[in-house]
Amino acid sequence: MMIVSTIVELRALRARLPGPVGFVPTMGFLHDGHLSLVRQARQECASAVVSIFVNPTQFGPGEDLSRYPRNLARDQAMLESEDVDILWLPTPEQMYPPGYQTWVTVEEASNPLEGAARPGHFRGVATVVAKLFNAVQPDMAYFGQKDAQQVAVIRQMTRDLNFPVEIVVCPTAREPDGLAKSSRNVYLNAQERKAATVLFRSLSAAKDAFAGGERDARKLRMKMEEILAGEVLARPQYISCAHPLTLQELDIITDDALLSMAVYVGTTRLIDNVLLQQEM
Amino acid sequence: MMIVSTIVELRALRARLPGPVGFVPTMGFLHDGHLSLVRQARQECASAVVSIFVNPTQFGPGEDLSRYPRNLARDQAMLESEDVDILWLPTPEQMYPPGYQTWVTVEEASNPLEGAARPGHFRGVATVVAKLFNAVQPDMAYFGQKDAQQVAVIRQMTRDLNFPVEIVVCPTAREPDGLAKSSRNVYLNAQERKAATVLFRSLSAAKDAFAGGERDARKLRMKMEEILAGEVLARPQYISCAHPLTLQELDIITDDALLSMAVYVGTTRLIDNVLLQQEM
Repeated sequence: MMIVSTIVELRALRARLPGPVGFVPTMGFLHDGHLSLVRQARQECASAVVSIFVNPTQFGPGEDLSRYPRNLARDQAMLESEDVDILWLPTPEQMYPPGYQTWVTVEEASNPLEGAARPGHFRGVATVVAKLFNAVQPDMAYFGQKDAQQVAVIRQMTRDLNFPVEIVVCPTAREPDGLAKSSRNVYLNAQERKAATVLFRSLSAAKDAFAGGERDARKLRMKMEEILAGEVLARPQYISCAHPLTLQELDIITDDALLSMAVYVGTTRLIDNVLLQQEM
Repeated sequence: MMIVSTIVELRALRARLPGPVGFVPTMGFLHDGHLSLVRQARQECASAVVSIFVNPTQFGPGEDLSRYPRNLARDQAMLESEDVDILWLPTPEQMYPPGYQTWVTVEEASNPLEGAARPGHFRGVATVVAKLFNAVQPDMAYFGQKDAQQVAVIRQMTRDLNFPVEIVVCPTAREPDGLAKSSRNVYLNAQERKAATVLFRSLSAAKDAFAGGERDARKLRMKMEEILAGEVLARPQYISCAHPLTLQELDIITDDALLSMAVYVGTTRLIDNVLLQQEM
């Protein structure tokens, strides 16, 4: 595995990789979710590139940028054993030099849910992914379903700006008790860790209701709200049953739907989602 | 010369071109200015790609989108004789399909001058150039100094978003009497056509004053204003002496400077500029 920092070095090495090139952009502190993306890239592509960059422009003023968990030594070892070709570690100064002033904005898909709760978040995400795509020039790029709205925003940007990149979405990796794997789970104390299962429990209950024939989106949201209310450590920020591409809230589910939520467990903000798909 | 319309066709042909690939994006109704870009691309690159697309998103509501001059047959013949490899003719429906929602914004460089006079103009320019770059994937892209602020915006975008494209800027092509070549010159009647030389006359007078040692930017702007005032058909919209990269107005010229102006001649809006460079 070659480790590079500057874009100049990256481009030089990238030019020599056999194609197709698969790319997994991450913010590091890797878990099984990231590794499942890396493994799929490794399987589907001749070459695999991973970036680790805690992108400052997707964090809001009050958010956890400064304390976002990092462990580069462990990340490197994990990627080394996955047989990654290039690990790219850009610096904030390199990505956003003095005078930086260009932003990529995806409008409708960025507005609700995470976008409403975290103003500017998806502008930062879309911008950094555009930069990473241009620097790495991958054929395929791998993202986790865990960040469902991020997937919608990046799909839309890729299509709208004609990036020659195929977006591949991999299933959410979960702990045995259902908690979605996330770098931020490390913030949870033992009691909060137990309480955090309430996200997947409420999503699963709504999914079961859907499987049982419920198509009233309001009733599915109430079902999730009810179960979340049973957990005193959990404070929901939003509870959604929306169209999986436009992210617009639904009244009646006629096609596929995305159940998603953001919930504070203690002071840690967790998100999770499940896709509801009509039987064929 | 291969002529294509869809991005799918373009990508298929582009993949077979020998590199480096030079790209000249245009809005058609070609003149010597465009051809000088094409010739330089042809000379410096193994392959040359030209696009013709009157980009609706860079025109404001009251502007000349619907009557922008077009002559595809003549454009095609001209490019054929310049030995262009691919002529790409995207359609508005293809570039901005239903649900389109992604915009590239370059902030500071877009604000003054043309950006102030034409709100949203450079958002449209930056967005379409990002799309064209991603579709064509050129190694070099050629732009005219005539659109000096456009050059500044595209340079900034290319650097900020890490596009793997080298921006080449070619000198403004002029009529024998100094009028900058422009597709919009066709709007001028005979009397206006004569009056239109006032742009270059005023720029040249200020340039002469600079060559004579004048470094007071205000005095250069006044010099241009004075000469423009002598032409009754000309109504200046802005008259600028600014930094060539940041486009910020200068007080005293200590390094290079850009003299630029937008002037209505009759109902036709013309722009022109000259670069002032310190002797080495």
